[in-house]
Amino acid sequence: MRIDSVEFFYASMPEVTLEADGSQDALLVRVVGDDGSVGWGECEASPLTSIAAFVTPRSHGVCQPVSASILGEQVNTPADILRISQLVARNSMDLLQAAHTWSGVEIALWDLLGRKLEQPIWKLLGYTTNFAKVPYASMLMGDTPQSTLERAKEARAKGFRAVKFGWGNYGTADVKDDADHVAAAREGLGKDAELLIDAGQIWGDDVELAMKRIPALQKAGATWLEEPFFAHAFKAYSDLSKVSGDVGLAGGEGAHTEHMAMNLIDFGGVKFIQVDSARIGGIGPSKVVADHALRNGVTFVNHTFTSHLALSASMQAFVGLESHRICEYPVEPKSVAWDLSVEHISLNSDGEIMAPDSPGLGIRVDESALRPYLRQVEIRIDGQLTYESGPLGVTTSVVI
Amino acid sequence: MRIDSVEFFYASMPEVTLEADGSQDALLVRVVGDDGSVGWGECEASPLTSIAAFVTPRSHGVCQPVSASILGEQVNTPADILRISQLVARNSMDLLQAAHTWSGVEIALWDLLGRKLEQPIWKLLGYTTNFAKVPYASMLMGDTPQSTLERAKEARAKGFRAVKFGWGNYGTADVKDDADHVAAAREGLGKDAELLIDAGQIWGDDVELAMKRIPALQKAGATWLEEPFFAHAFKAYSDLSKVSGDVGLAGGEGAHTEHMAMNLIDFGGVKFIQVDSARIGGIGPSKVVADHALRNGVTFVNHTFTSHLALSASMQAFVGLESHRICEYPVEPKSVAWDLSVEHISLNSDGEIMAPDSPGLGIRVDESALRPYLRQVEIRIDGQLTYESGPLGVTTSVVI
Repeated sequence: MRIDSVEFFYASMPEVTLEADGSQDALLVRVVGDDGSVGWGECEASPLTSIAAFVTPRSHGVCQPVSASILGEQVNTPADILRISQLVARNSMDLLQAAHTWSGVEIALWDLLGRKLEQPIWKLLGYTTNFAKVPYASMLMGDTPQSTLERAKEARAKGFRAVKFGWGNYGTADVKDDADHVAAAREGLGKDAELLIDAGQIWGDDVELAMKRIPALQKAGATWLEEPFFAHAFKAYSDLSKVSGDVGLAGGEGAHTEHMAMNLIDFGGVKFIQVDSARIGGIGPSKVVADHALRNGVTFVNHTFTSHLALSASMQAFVGLESHRICEYPVEPKSVAWDLSVEHISLNSDGEIMAPDSPGLGIRVDESALRPYLRQVEIRIDGQLTYESGPLGVTTSVVI
Repeated sequence: MRIDSVEFFYASMPEVTLEADGSQDALLVRVVGDDGSVGWGECEASPLTSIAAFVTPRSHGVCQPVSASILGEQVNTPADILRISQLVARNSMDLLQAAHTWSGVEIALWDLLGRKLEQPIWKLLGYTTNFAKVPYASMLMGDTPQSTLERAKEARAKGFRAVKFGWGNYGTADVKDDADHVAAAREGLGKDAELLIDAGQIWGDDVELAMKRIPALQKAGATWLEEPFFAHAFKAYSDLSKVSGDVGLAGGEGAHTEHMAMNLIDFGGVKFIQVDSARIGGIGPSKVVADHALRNGVTFVNHTFTSHLALSASMQAFVGLESHRICEYPVEPKSVAWDLSVEHISLNSDGEIMAPDSPGLGIRVDESALRPYLRQVEIRIDGQLTYESGPLGVTTSVVI
């Protein structure tokens, strides 16, 4: 079928705070084929900027808007999605935001194709079994070790077998304070749950600062230390990985190309590669990274902090990998992220989750619930309308 | 002084074609301090998308618009520019386009500071001598080997001692055709000029395809093979570098962080690191890469395909490195790129160029020449004006 339209829906909480909580807004993408088939995706990205990358006037041959490579293209097989992906990479080579914009469109194309072929996306990727995953609860580090301890207990009470703490003051306070938080987290979790620590790039590329935190992490039996450094600081990752012992390094959520994530494996020495399909260029590149992780004895983990549509999208690339068990799960998303989908992925009695078995992403957008969150965007260049948010319910072509 | 306003000026040719010619539009940045001081910079980036990254509503604490980290900040020393750079990196961590937007602002802050302190930027960076560079002419490969030969002769006749050929059909035609073009280029240049070849990422991450082109490059005595692969394909760079012999690999123009460029040195095995200050985050990160190149026996080269304002900006980071001689020079820029500056950097009788010795970038914007090229951008969210292009001549604050 031919891609006839690509539309963006920018949804947001009435107030967006400075919390490190990515569920406060969402950029949904709807693609429609010439036979009326519909697919939905989501960009984990700045909505206005990502829309601009779709409609911007071209700057030159390899700095074209994302739209230039998509509208009018044929999509009948997974190979078609890869082909369009390569077109975007070529034609928008110098447009940095293109990867984030394209991610949501790519996911929507997989959803469209899965629905058309009546297959879940993971089957189209070649997997035959949908293995259950162990979701971890992502939580902010408490203000005091005592509050971290209590949060850990709460997460366990909700049935989580793995919990991640991070951000807050972790990494910026002194080493002893950080160690107290980590010890409190372990105490609250008990011995048999997995403890994950997220430094949120706080040490930049300073390996010394990171090394000082390793003993406390080792003592608490932390499974991983996530994002100690800037997304591109592979040398720092590599140096730290040589002295972190049983505490594996984790990272990759900032990867906006499959190679960037693979570099973290090849050169950064990570043991866990965290990929957000809604940033890396979609589900196809995520699967490429999962294959590379498998070849290199590295564990693939999704990165998801937004909706269950995005959660399903980020799970597709590794549902077939039985031993890659751990899975990021948005525990306390803002209402916009929860409300926007009809279906949700819930913990079963074993504290595990599974990607949907239904066609496409298996998660439908709840248009009536989404409507109150929508924001209208209008862009004019030289007085002429370049972009205007369309209404839900009616599909409109974007013509550049 | 306090940064009181940051304004963007989007200039463009009346028609922007699909040529791989980055001089067809420009995004200029003007910053104004509270004492009325003015500085100019340029983003080598998609104008509309880069403006959107400056004004977009925030998505969360580390996906804030670029403006949030700049307006109202104090700039009195180079350390202040670094401090603001770190704020942008932190607060806009998840906003991919931020690096391109910030690049132009950062350059404008250096220009502002240099003019205020009455010093060229290269002196503020710690250099004491402004060494002449050997500019190379960047040309498209001809349609036939004969036309490539003629272009090579023309470039020599204009006084260029180094010439780069690339794009066109290079790398996509068969190996023999590519070899014929390379041999023709050498024939046209004569023995004593430097021959550079640019593959424009054409082989993706396919090392085999690139390897087949190496013998012809070696035979012609090419100085470098530029961008054989995707910007992040460091493993492919590394593999090719082990078999390319005297033909050094060059790359880096796609780097949007200093670490990304340094990775190409540390892990990609390049011999020439090409940095565009107007993409990598400005002049400060460019100097960090130049220092890293120097430590690692790698030659620093600017990447510039646009205006002489951008050329001066990209030269600052390496004018003090005497043995890093070669320099990209936009030979046939479109009129918008030429007209927008009062001063231009010209070849002397030895076929060499020098960065200006005057304060700041030493290149002033020609506002009256720029005016006819300007495009007006207007962005509304929920009906409210979020951004509107301001007029030249009058400075206006951008308030988010």
